[in-house]
Amino acid sequence: MKEEVLIPPYEGRSVSVKEGEELCIIDVEGKQVGDFVCFNHRDTGEYVSPVHMRASLSSIRLKEGDPLYSNRRRPLMQLVRDTVGRHDFFFPACDYYRYQVDYGEENHPNCHDNLMKALEKYRIRPGLLPDPINWFMNNLLDENWDYEIREPLSRPGDYVRLKALEDVVVAVSTCSQDMAPVNGFKVTPLKLQISGGS
Amino acid sequence: MKEEVLIPPYEGRSVSVKEGEELCIIDVEGKQVGDFVCFNHRDTGEYVSPVHMRASLSSIRLKEGDPLYSNRRRPLMQLVRDTVGRHDFFFPACDYYRYQVDYGEENHPNCHDNLMKALEKYRIRPGLLPDPINWFMNNLLDENWDYEIREPLSRPGDYVRLKALEDVVVAVSTCSQDMAPVNGFKVTPLKLQISGGS
Repeated sequence: MKEEVLIPPYEGRSVSVKEGEELCIIDVEGKQVGDFVCFNHRDTGEYVSPVHMRASLSSIRLKEGDPLYSNRRRPLMQLVRDTVGRHDFFFPACDYYRYQVDYGEENHPNCHDNLMKALEKYRIRPGLLPDPINWFMNNLLDENWDYEIREPLSRPGDYVRLKALEDVVVAVSTCSQDMAPVNGFKVTPLKLQISGGS
Repeated sequence: MKEEVLIPPYEGRSVSVKEGEELCIIDVEGKQVGDFVCFNHRDTGEYVSPVHMRASLSSIRLKEGDPLYSNRRRPLMQLVRDTVGRHDFFFPACDYYRYQVDYGEENHPNCHDNLMKALEKYRIRPGLLPDPINWFMNNLLDENWDYEIREPLSRPGDYVRLKALEDVVVAVSTCSQDMAPVNGFKVTPLKLQISGGS
């Protein structure tokens, strides 16, 4: 293994992953969502874009083998292994407005700010944060296309493994929502592991 | 009626709608998707944001009565009347990359550029175009959450009516995709009508 990074609860971290390397995102204690953004390191105007992924994949479900497409409709990473099988890529990062509008809280930690702060390490300062992929988030859609946010299906040690198809910078936040089922009402750590790839 | 604007095929137009006024988007010949963006006229850093709408509505389906929420999770407009009942708000605007990557076409008209150009009338020049609502777009989801883009259900004269809850600027593009079922393989006009509201 080349590098290991623990992401504490209510925080974000960023890592550089070179073309051909693999990144594991591990749910250490289980039931913890990881908000994820990914930039092309050579041109940070290109980034993984869920809205374009939904078009290129003709799906709102992520599965093993799926490329993670950019705003220029090119694959930057690929989901090569997934021990859970339920993730989200249509929901926003929680942000200041989420806690202010819905809970009246002015200073709650939030994924938007965690990710923006984590990206500073690589001097990536997007005017707008791209929409996240929310690994392990469990939105259950009904027949009317309404959905309910349930507790994640991930158990301790479950993970997704992503292969870099370009040199990328990835930021991940331990989703900081502790007042809803999204993380089982408790925010716990995630672990990032980078390896040389297979 | 206060104002009427015809949007020719392959083009975009923008209009100002004052708080309390209503905007009708009319599918003149039927089967024509309209890509739609909407900005708070007093602070164009706030705009209708489909990713935040999906969170606030707990749904990926739009229905009469739904507010159109902003990136600050506040309602800017409301869908007050809908004669079709099938629209999209998880798909991107077609853009240069869509036609270049998927069809090898360098110069195809596209909604991204149509909307950016239409917004110039009000000197709105976002660094990134917000995701659109795609009125009349008919994405049919299956039980695996994969979907297929079908021809719109809208017939000639079908419409949606939106009430402005703030002073807004709206831009709409006649979706310029003529090589897929999304507009029935043919791009036709849309009409905008602004009235004083009820």
